[in-house]
Amino acid sequence: MRREVIPYQWEALNDRVEGAAPSYCMRNFRVAGRMMREKKSKGAAYVAPTYTFRGFEALPEDPAHPEEDKFYGFVFQDTDFSKWIEAVGYSLLQHPDPVLEQTADEAIDIVCGAQLENGYLDTYYIINGMDRAFTNLRDHHELYCLGHLVEGAVAYYQATGKDKLLKAAMGFADYCCEVFGPAEGQCKGYPGHEIAEMALVRLYQVTGEERYLKLSRFFLDQRGQQPFYFEEEEKERAAHDGQPYRPNTNNAYHRAHLPVREQAEAVGHAVRAVYLYSGMADVARLCRDEAMEAACDRLWDNVTREKMYVTGGIGATHMGEAFSFAYDLPNDTAYSETCAAIGLVFWARRMLQLKPRGKYGDVMELALYNTVLAGMALDGRSFFYVNPLEVLPRACHEDARKAHVKSVRQKWFGCACCPPNIARLVSSVAAYAYTESADTLWVHLYMGSVLTKQVGEKTLELQVEAGMPWEGKVKVKVHGEQVPCRLAFRIPGWSSGAKVSCCCGGEQLQIAVEEKGLAVRGIPEAGSTEEGGRMPQKAVAYREGYLYLDGVWQDGDEILLDMEMPVRILTADPRVREDIGKVAVARGPVVYCLEEADNGKDLYLCRLALQSLNPENIQEEIRIERTQELGHPMIVLKMPGRRLVPGESRELYSPCQPQQEREITLRMIPYYAWNNRGEGEMSVWMRA
Amino acid sequence: MRREVIPYQWEALNDRVEGAAPSYCMRNFRVAGRMMREKKSKGAAYVAPTYTFRGFEALPEDPAHPEEDKFYGFVFQDTDFSKWIEAVGYSLLQHPDPVLEQTADEAIDIVCGAQLENGYLDTYYIINGMDRAFTNLRDHHELYCLGHLVEGAVAYYQATGKDKLLKAAMGFADYCCEVFGPAEGQCKGYPGHEIAEMALVRLYQVTGEERYLKLSRFFLDQRGQQPFYFEEEEKERAAHDGQPYRPNTNNAYHRAHLPVREQAEAVGHAVRAVYLYSGMADVARLCRDEAMEAACDRLWDNVTREKMYVTGGIGATHMGEAFSFAYDLPNDTAYSETCAAIGLVFWARRMLQLKPRGKYGDVMELALYNTVLAGMALDGRSFFYVNPLEVLPRACHEDARKAHVKSVRQKWFGCACCPPNIARLVSSVAAYAYTESADTLWVHLYMGSVLTKQVGEKTLELQVEAGMPWEGKVKVKVHGEQVPCRLAFRIPGWSSGAKVSCCCGGEQLQIAVEEKGLAVRGIPEAGSTEEGGRMPQKAVAYREGYLYLDGVWQDGDEILLDMEMPVRILTADPRVREDIGKVAVARGPVVYCLEEADNGKDLYLCRLALQSLNPENIQEEIRIERTQELGHPMIVLKMPGRRLVPGESRELYSPCQPQQEREITLRMIPYYAWNNRGEGEMSVWMRA
Repeated sequence: MRREVIPYQWEALNDRVEGAAPSYCMRNFRVAGRMMREKKSKGAAYVAPTYTFRGFEALPEDPAHPEEDKFYGFVFQDTDFSKWIEAVGYSLLQHPDPVLEQTADEAIDIVCGAQLENGYLDTYYIINGMDRAFTNLRDHHELYCLGHLVEGAVAYYQATGKDKLLKAAMGFADYCCEVFGPAEGQCKGYPGHEIAEMALVRLYQVTGEERYLKLSRFFLDQRGQQPFYFEEEEKERAAHDGQPYRPNTNNAYHRAHLPVREQAEAVGHAVRAVYLYSGMADVARLCRDEAMEAACDRLWDNVTREKMYVTGGIGATHMGEAFSFAYDLPNDTAYSETCAAIGLVFWARRMLQLKPRGKYGDVMELALYNTVLAGMALDGRSFFYVNPLEVLPRACHEDARKAHVKSVRQKWFGCACCPPNIARLVSSVAAYAYTESADTLWVHLYMGSVLTKQVGEKTLELQVEAGMPWEGKVKVKVHGEQVPCRLAFRIPGWSSGAKVSCCCGGEQLQIAVEEKGLAVRGIPEAGSTEEGGRMPQKAVAYREGYLYLDGVWQDGDEILLDMEMPVRILTADPRVREDIGKVAVARGPVVYCLEEADNGKDLYLCRLALQSLNPENIQEEIRIERTQELGHPMIVLKMPGRRLVPGESRELYSPCQPQQEREITLRMIPYYAWNNRGEGEMSVWMRA
Repeated sequence: MRREVIPYQWEALNDRVEGAAPSYCMRNFRVAGRMMREKKSKGAAYVAPTYTFRGFEALPEDPAHPEEDKFYGFVFQDTDFSKWIEAVGYSLLQHPDPVLEQTADEAIDIVCGAQLENGYLDTYYIINGMDRAFTNLRDHHELYCLGHLVEGAVAYYQATGKDKLLKAAMGFADYCCEVFGPAEGQCKGYPGHEIAEMALVRLYQVTGEERYLKLSRFFLDQRGQQPFYFEEEEKERAAHDGQPYRPNTNNAYHRAHLPVREQAEAVGHAVRAVYLYSGMADVARLCRDEAMEAACDRLWDNVTREKMYVTGGIGATHMGEAFSFAYDLPNDTAYSETCAAIGLVFWARRMLQLKPRGKYGDVMELALYNTVLAGMALDGRSFFYVNPLEVLPRACHEDARKAHVKSVRQKWFGCACCPPNIARLVSSVAAYAYTESADTLWVHLYMGSVLTKQVGEKTLELQVEAGMPWEGKVKVKVHGEQVPCRLAFRIPGWSSGAKVSCCCGGEQLQIAVEEKGLAVRGIPEAGSTEEGGRMPQKAVAYREGYLYLDGVWQDGDEILLDMEMPVRILTADPRVREDIGKVAVARGPVVYCLEEADNGKDLYLCRLALQSLNPENIQEEIRIERTQELGHPMIVLKMPGRRLVPGESRELYSPCQPQQEREITLRMIPYYAWNNRGEGEMSVWMRA
C-alpha cells in the first residue's frame, strides 16, 4: 500500500497514469480554488456561476484539452481525494514518510482552497453554480462527498495531528447541520449514497461534538418516511425546470421505501446498502437503539444467508450494482463489487462493536481475504471493480450481457471508487483485527502486530505472530505488570477445532475448543494432577465464537493458539440454482479457484473426483503445496479431477451416452490471486 | 389462424385490442393517404413536409390523443399490415371467406391510397418528409417494408387473383430498381434489415420480370463490399446535419463486414441473418451460384452445429437480438426470438429447394413444432417474442437482466413482428411440407393434406393422412392414371427406423429403413419367394434422409410409412456450458419441458432418475400418456425423478454432505404448450 498503491493513486488523481481513464479529481479542486480566489479578489463585483451542468458524468469534448473552468468526471469525483487522504493517514500512522506527508499537505491546501466561506465543499456545485446545491440529494451525492471528506480528514488528523483538513470537514459538516434537521425551514432530506451516517459518528467520536451524532441519526430517522423525500425533491426539480413531473424514483433501490428500523431485506445498490447498515450499527450502539439493532440483525441474516457469494462478495446484479432476490447468485454475471465487500467489512466490524459474535468475524475475514483482495493485482497496480466467480474471457469480449465483467484488471476507472477504497481498508486493517471495551480486548483477525491497550492506568502490550491465512498457529506474547484484562480470541467457523495453551500470571492451562467451538475443555497439564490446570477454570469461557481468557497478565505470559485448518469442500444451499451439483474448495478463510493457466482452457469440462467426501479422505486426497506466485508466498491445492472429452459427433444434440472423461490433476490457487498471470478462464465452483 | 388469429390481428392493427400496445399501422396508412389526397387537391400549391422525426419509434405525448398528422410506431410499422395480408392470402387460398376478403380489399385500398406517384410506399417518410428517404438504409428499414409488402401482395394475388396490391408492390419495387443499381448515379446500398432479397425473388417468380431477381442479386453482391455502405451513409447523414462524423456502425452486426459469399459464421441480428441466408439460398439456386451455395452450406452448419437451441431456437442474446458466440446458449436469458425460428424455417425450405437433405427437413420440423408454435398460446390470442428454455417468473420480474424474458405471453407488441409472422408461416405451412421438381415430389413434413402435382400433362393426386407429431404412421393414397413420378419421403433424424409398405402400379414392396435411415432393405412380401417383392428394387433408393420411390402410379396405389418414435434423452455437446450434466427429453419432433403446474415450484431441484440410458430401458421407464390440455390433444410423458430436499441448515454454504432427495414422478409436456395454465416455472433441460 505505502510503496505502490498510494503513490500510484496520487498519479491517477492527477491524471498522470498513461492508458488509464483520467480522474480530473485534483484538477476540479484547483479549478474551484481558482474561482474562489477570483471571487475574493473581485469582491462584490463577482457573479457566482449559475448551475448549468446536468447529468452524472462530464467528460471533455476533446480529452486532450479539457476546458479550463469546467468540472469533469462524476458528480462525486471529490471523493477520489478523500479516500486517498484517508489511506495516506492510515499509512503514516504505521510508517512515517515525510515526502508523502508533504505531498498530502499540499493536496490538502488545494482542497481547502476550494471551500466556500459557509463551509460548503463540493467542487461539482462550486464550479457549476451553487444556486442548485442540495436539490438532488438522490443522485448528486453531495452528502456522500461530505462523508468521505470527514473519513479522510479524521484519519489524517489521527495520524499527523494536523487539523487543517479536519477543520474543513467540520466546516462542511457544520454547514450541513444548519441546512438539514427537524426544525422548520430545515431540509428533511438524506443521502442518496449513504456514508455520511457512519462518517458523522466518527467525527462525533473524534471531536466530542454531539451535533454530528444528531445529524447522523436525523438522516437515519428521516430515511423511508412519507412523503418520500426523493420524490418531493424530484417534483421540485420538475417545477423548477418547468417540466411535467414524471416520477422516476425507485425508493427501494435507495432503501428509502421503509423506515430503516422496519427494514428486513437488503435491497438496491449493494455498496450504499452496507454503508447504510454500518451507520445504523454505529447509531444502534451509541444510542442504545434496540429497534435499530434488531433491524441490523435482520439485515445481516438476510445478506449472509440469502445474498452473499461464497467469496464474501455481495450484489449479484450489475443492473444498478444491486442485490438481486434471495438465492439469485449467478457466478458468471456476478457483480460482487469490490466496494461492496469492503462495505460488508465495515458493517461486520461495527456489528462486532455492537456485540461480539463469531459470525461477524467470519464474514469479515471471508470478504477481506477473498473479494477485497481479489479487487487488486498482486503488484497493487491494477484493479477489479467487478469480481465474478466464473470467467470465460471470450464471453466478456463477445457477449454484451457480460460487458461489466472484465477479464483483466484495469489500471483505473472513471468511477474510481474501488481502488482507493481498497487502499483505505487495507491500510487500516488493524482497526478490523481488534476491538476493545474498557476491560476486554477482542482479537478478530490474526496477523503480525504489536498493540497496546490501556486498562485503567496500566498498559498491556501484546505481540502477535501469526501464519494466517496459511496456517492456524498464533503466538501472543504479553508484556505488562499485573494488568487485569479479558482477552477474547475468535475461533473461526472454518476451523474444525483449536488447541490453546495459555500461560497467565505464570499459571498454565491447556484448552481444547471442539466441534466448531461449541465446547471448551480444560486439559490438565502433563504432570499436573489438577483438572483444568492451575489457571482457574472460571476464567475461561467460550461464547458465540470467542474464547475468553480472563486474567491478570504479566511479562512472560503467552498464549498459543493452534486452529485446525482442513481443506473444506463446500456446497451451496440448493436454492442457489447456479451452484447445484457443484462444489467450492476452501482452506481457512481462503477460497480457491481453478485458473486456465494451471488447468487449460474450457474449465467447465473439469470436475472434482474425490473417492469420498469424508473429511479425512479429503485431507488425504488433496495435496497442499507451499509455493510462490509472482513472488508472493501462498498455498496451492492439488486434487484428483476428471475432464470431459468432447465426442466425435459434430451434432449439437444427440442421444445421451456415457461421457468420455480423462483423469487429470486439478490445481487450485487462492481466489484473490487469480488473473495475475495474464488473461484466462477462472472458476470458483466446479462440478463434483 | 383463420378463425382466431387473423381477425384478432386485424383488431390489433387498428388499435382496438384493449390492454395491448397500439400498432398505429393502419392509422399511419390513413394519415399518409389523407396527405396524398390533400396534395392532389392542392396541386402545385402543396408543399411536401420536410423530414423532421428522428429515431426508431414515435409514440404520442398523450396516448389517448395521438396527433392527427403524425406517424406513430416503429419506422417499419407498415409491415404489420403486410404480414397480416400475407396470412390472409394463405388463409383464403385454403378457405374462401368473403367477409375476410372484403376487409382485406378495404385495407388494400387504404394502403394503396398512401402510395406516392413514383411508386414509393413507406408511410414513415411519406408522413415525415420525403427529402430524407433512403438516407438511412441501416436503421430505417424502407427496403424491409418493400420486402414485406411484396410478400404480402404476392400471397394475396395468388389467393384471389386480385392484383391491386401486387401492382402497388411492383410500383415500389420498380422505383427501387431505378434508385438502386450498379449504374452511375444509382445508390449502392442494401437493406439494413434483410427480406427484400427473398421477396424480390418471389416477385420475379410470379411476374417473370428479371429486373427483380437482378435487384435481389445486386443487394447480395453489394453487401460487405468496401467502402462499407452503412458507414458512407452515416458520414453523409453527419454532414447533412452539420455534425462531426462519429462512426457508429457495427458491420458484422449487419452481416455487412464481408462479401456474403465469403461469410462462414452467423453473426449479428438473428432474424435478419436467416432472412439474408434465405435470399442467398434463393439466388444460389436460381442463378446456379456455387460460391453463394457454398456460403449457405457453411452458414447452415455453423448455425445448426454451434448456435441453435435444442428447440430449434436461434439468437442466444437479447443484446441486439443476436447470435452469441459458438456454443454460448444460455437457457434462462435466451432470446430465441419467434421470428428467428420462423426465419430458420424459411431458410431450411430454401435449402431443401437447393438440394434435398434430411438435415434441412429435420431442423425445419424442429423449429416449427417447438419454438414457432411456442410463440403463440394454444388459443392463438397471446404471443411470445422471446422463447427461453428455462423460466423462473420471479427472475423475470425482479432481475432486470431477464427483463426481456416474459413469464406470460403478451397480447401484442409495439414491435409486432412475431404474431403476424407466425400467422403467415402457419397459414402457408403446406409450402414447407412439400417441394417439387418436374418429375419429383418431396414430402418433408407429414400432415393431413390433399395435393396434386402436374407431371407433363398428367395429374397425380395424393391424399395424406398422418398422426404427427404424436405418431409416426403415415398413409398416402394415390389417385392418377399411370402417372410416372418419383415420390420422396423424409425419414426424420429422430426416428430410429421406418417400415414402409408401398403399392405401386399394383405391385407390393416392403421396405425397412434402419439405423437412422442409413440402410434400405427390401423385405419379401409374405408368401412371395422373390427377394425385394415385385416392385423393382432399383426403383427404391435412400439418399441423405429421403426415401425415393420411383414408379408409375395409378388409382388404388398406397404408401404406408411407419416411423419409430421412441422417447429420446438428449445431451448437448459439452461445449454448451449451460447444459453440462443435464438432459432434454424429446419424442418425434416434439421437445418436452417441465412446468410448475405439473411438478411444483423450484424445478431446478428436480432431476431425471432413470435406471439406465439404454434405449429399451428409456421406453420402459417413461410412460406415454395421451391427454387433452385446454382442449388440445397431446402426448405427455411421465418418468421417475428425484427432488432435492433443502437441508435444515440456514447456512448458505456448508461442508459437502450427501444431499437428501425424495422420489417423484416428473410430468413433461410439449415445450410448445407451456404457459397455457397461468404463470409458472418452466425448464427444458434438467439434471440427470
